Amino acid sequence: MKIVCLGSGNVATNLASAFKTSGAEIVQIWSKTLANAQALASVLKSQAIDNLNEIDKDADLYLICIKDDAIIEVASKLTELKGLVLHTSGATGMDVFSNLSLTNYGVIYPLQTFSKNRKIDPSTIPLCIEADSEETLTKLRSIAAKLGPLIYQVNSVDRKILHLAAVFACNFTNHLYQISADILERNHLDFDMLKPLITETAAKVQSALPKEVQTGPAIRNDELTMRKHLQLLKSTPELVNIYETLSKSIKKTYL
Amino acid sequence: MKIVCLGSGNVATNLASAFKTSGAEIVQIWSKTLANAQALASVLKSQAIDNLNEIDKDADLYLICIKDDAIIEVASKLTELKGLVLHTSGATGMDVFSNLSLTNYGVIYPLQTFSKNRKIDPSTIPLCIEADSEETLTKLRSIAAKLGPLIYQVNSVDRKILHLAAVFACNFTNHLYQISADILERNHLDFDMLKPLITETAAKVQSALPKEVQTGPAIRNDELTMRKHLQLLKSTPELVNIYETLSKSIKKTYL
Repeated sequence: MKIVCLGSGNVATNLASAFKTSGAEIVQIWSKTLANAQALASVLKSQAIDNLNEIDKDADLYLICIKDDAIIEVASKLTELKGLVLHTSGATGMDVFSNLSLTNYGVIYPLQTFSKNRKIDPSTIPLCIEADSEETLTKLRSIAAKLGPLIYQVNSVDRKILHLAAVFACNFTNHLYQISADILERNHLDFDMLKPLITETAAKVQSALPKEVQTGPAIRNDELTMRKHLQLLKSTPELVNIYETLSKSIKKTYL
Repeated sequence: MKIVCLGSGNVATNLASAFKTSGAEIVQIWSKTLANAQALASVLKSQAIDNLNEIDKDADLYLICIKDDAIIEVASKLTELKGLVLHTSGATGMDVFSNLSLTNYGVIYPLQTFSKNRKIDPSTIPLCIEADSEETLTKLRSIAAKLGPLIYQVNSVDRKILHLAAVFACNFTNHLYQISADILERNHLDFDMLKPLITETAAKVQSALPKEVQTGPAIRNDELTMRKHLQLLKSTPELVNIYETLSKSIKKTYL
């Protein structure tokens, strides 16, 4: 399978690498910044381009891994292609492709968090797929299966819901980790001490629902401890606000 | 080593079980509700009591695992003991013991989240210890070492900071998991789909600082996606508030 990867960021790096490992050939990496394309292309033994007119017309798959608001512009320049065109965005409908002159298209949304310098086992990535026809879906399903077994057929509406849920479960969660790291750093305590707790908190909800394993002062309605915590946070009103907002939400859940 | 465990909740269950596994004898479980003491005592082959006057005076260790605001009352009734008295609370200073007639005392605070029906490998629990004297500290260190290698000497001020950081990294994080589970449930989507993302988000910060691996629309300042998300949340004003509060905090961090 010959793949052109459009984009060179976190998602592009991880998905293109995963396809390469599965045996596909990454024939081109396109980026509007050639140096970025070159950086990824050199790893994947691929050609780096920054001009969409130079796109290989004979690839089997065109994988668009770029900012949401740039998808339509880039896709509109992908003409005379027989290969399958996919975007990888959680928040973008498949209809972004519908008025373009594409032969077949769809979406492969990896429900995972990617960083360039961290490899993820592709078999642990849930792949949410959607296609313009049953025929394309069959093709897409077999392409996704090269990466891993966690394949879900998800329409554009549900994909947006998953993306929203992922913001809470991943992006906001990581920010809470950061707040805790900052609190420790300001007090010359080592973030390493919190790592087993972070691991266990995530491990618990693999086999139980989050609401079954909620712990802490808010669910116990332990007002004394919460007041002490707010006292410790008083020099950072923003953290007071986050603490109060989340504690109130926890209390409300278990009323 | 003979241990009396005061309390029968999540912390008591996990710590007493871990000590038992390490070879200690749990001679008594006290709870103000006898049935609760009996439930744990039957598992640990221990005596259940609900009267503090019946406490075994010859134990080596008295482990207080009860609500923070009940510690002083229970501890004040522990008289004529030669054994070491420890509480396990993050938010409570060691000075809660200082005006009582205890021979030696201290704190062993397990920086972990516990649920009764989930066993944790004790070797992965950071144990924060504090003692009333160097002599007691030496004794406490050797007791803690029976459970695992992650032993930190932490004073009462720093312990409260760790407890606060743990609320963000664990209790609030679990609540975000729950919000994401609720969002999926309302839309008939399976929480299982988010589990690999939750695992990876926690795994990332084991080897990188959270601020190095933050992803999502807020850090990209992707206003379009954030507006779409707020639109999806509009029937739940409380979630709109949490979304806006945390997004604003992320944006501010990376300005």
